[in-house]
Amino acid sequence: MSVVQIAHGGGGKLTEDLIKEVFVKTFDNEIINGMEDSAVINLESVNLAFTTDSYTVKPLFFPGGDIGKLAVYGTVNDLLMRGARPLFLSASFIIEEGFEIEGLKAVATSMAGACQEARVSIVTGDTKVVAKGEADQLFINTSGVGLVPPGVDVSIKKARPGDSIIISGTIGDHGMAILSSRENFTFDPPVESDCAPLMEMANTILEYRDFIRVMRDPTRGGAAEVFYNISEAGGVGIEIYEDQLPVKPQVISACNMLGLDFYQLANEGKLITVVESSVSKKVLESIKGCKYGRNAAIIGTVNDSGLVTVKTRLGTSRILSRPIGELIPRIC
Amino acid sequence: MSVVQIAHGGGGKLTEDLIKEVFVKTFDNEIINGMEDSAVINLESVNLAFTTDSYTVKPLFFPGGDIGKLAVYGTVNDLLMRGARPLFLSASFIIEEGFEIEGLKAVATSMAGACQEARVSIVTGDTKVVAKGEADQLFINTSGVGLVPPGVDVSIKKARPGDSIIISGTIGDHGMAILSSRENFTFDPPVESDCAPLMEMANTILEYRDFIRVMRDPTRGGAAEVFYNISEAGGVGIEIYEDQLPVKPQVISACNMLGLDFYQLANEGKLITVVESSVSKKVLESIKGCKYGRNAAIIGTVNDSGLVTVKTRLGTSRILSRPIGELIPRIC
Repeated sequence: MSVVQIAHGGGGKLTEDLIKEVFVKTFDNEIINGMEDSAVINLESVNLAFTTDSYTVKPLFFPGGDIGKLAVYGTVNDLLMRGARPLFLSASFIIEEGFEIEGLKAVATSMAGACQEARVSIVTGDTKVVAKGEADQLFINTSGVGLVPPGVDVSIKKARPGDSIIISGTIGDHGMAILSSRENFTFDPPVESDCAPLMEMANTILEYRDFIRVMRDPTRGGAAEVFYNISEAGGVGIEIYEDQLPVKPQVISACNMLGLDFYQLANEGKLITVVESSVSKKVLESIKGCKYGRNAAIIGTVNDSGLVTVKTRLGTSRILSRPIGELIPRIC
Repeated sequence: MSVVQIAHGGGGKLTEDLIKEVFVKTFDNEIINGMEDSAVINLESVNLAFTTDSYTVKPLFFPGGDIGKLAVYGTVNDLLMRGARPLFLSASFIIEEGFEIEGLKAVATSMAGACQEARVSIVTGDTKVVAKGEADQLFINTSGVGLVPPGVDVSIKKARPGDSIIISGTIGDHGMAILSSRENFTFDPPVESDCAPLMEMANTILEYRDFIRVMRDPTRGGAAEVFYNISEAGGVGIEIYEDQLPVKPQVISACNMLGLDFYQLANEGKLITVVESSVSKKVLESIKGCKYGRNAAIIGTVNDSGLVTVKTRLGTSRILSRPIGELIPRIC
């Protein structure tokens, strides 16, 4: 079996072989090995977090990651951004007839590695195959469940005037990496996707849980969309200090050349947190101590203007553009 | 906005509009209205069931149902088959650029109605749009969580020699409905998909919980695949009495004409249960009292042969064919 055939989606023996060979063997844990219709998970606690995301990124393999890694970290990060401890994932594959089994194995292996790093298990799954031309290679859905510890209450709605805004590192890397690998641009040094789990950072931040208002990962729509979400949901304004914002020089020049806005480029391993200003420096130092947080910075404050503005390097102020559509589809 | 544009998948304002207009408004509940990254669900209990399925059925609307109804009932039924009480669903959409918004609304509305009948809520979701030609109209993933009451333990592994096998109604209806609507066959009377939630039946059956071994819904791969799954997982044999098996006469004739095997046709609102023989008649009567169980029948017994056999109407015995691939792709 070297390519997926339409018969692999039929629900019979070949489907079972494919699932066993490619997924169960790779994800290997007691629950998924049971190959039941649902995973039954014994939980002790009360606040369950539950999220879902479909991944359609193109190309499937890109500098710094691949669709499998993205599918694990993306969903894990969505759980983390609610203050949850991610526990279990589901994984569902829609595969185009003719897709190489080796490619599928590479993706599954990448997912298993990502699960190990993020300390989650894939406990249930599904596989569909569609005819050639009815999907583009491979789409993955992962859903996730996690537990929110007592006393944790972060929400997009909670920003208040005076709060500080922190970002965990450079913005726009994922979007630019996808774009460059799709269009065969090269950068020196190369721009890689920032695709990473936010677990260590989220845990560190939650040590200050009474002072943490919002955590969000700026994926599709970029940092700009998160700023607008925080502004609208909380009924507040946001001011960003552009001279404090970490952006790689290659990303800035490419954006200038291509007419793109790095505020709107996708990220897959960054978080934006809104915290009470009294703890902002401590939280920043904690984030900087994390593997994926070395370039963290305090980049703005919450105010009562109701607007999302940027204080430019020249000291002037402008309204930040909100993403409407997206120049680059299939970024995640 | 009358067709989905690539920009609807960008994660910005248009994506938000699409999600609000089409999904949040339709699914309408306190949790999804929050539009957070994850749904946080307050649970009191301990045994969580968690399942996922992607739906790629073609055509999207077919006699007796549509992809939305299927996506809700399919996942709800997978939870029910483990003895769980379904509680919450996620819904993730991969939409081909150019797909009609009206069609999407019709699907979402159908899902909302199905949720109402199955008494579940869609609490979290995701929307991706891919370029024209990169997917075939619409794919939906639903994942589900539910709780398994204490003392309930049904599993594909638990069939024992001497047990009785009950099916809740006629087999092959969904597969034949899809095939006929795709190929423009007509039947008199028409064959409709059996697409339905199995909640009432599963609850009724679980009143005999100490005597219930297995519950499974025979979807892709049909009844035949479930018999083989029960046989392999339990290390047992199965004998089916063909004269007891409920099959619609039109389905039998169409199968004869087209060279198809009704044992291998998909169902979307049927269950197969293996029960201790002492309660088989009582369980049968309970199932017959349910809305979707009127044609239920005891159709076989578990033995120690290790084989899946059919006792034909002529009194002879044959090995049942196991589905390998599937004649009809994209059945669910």
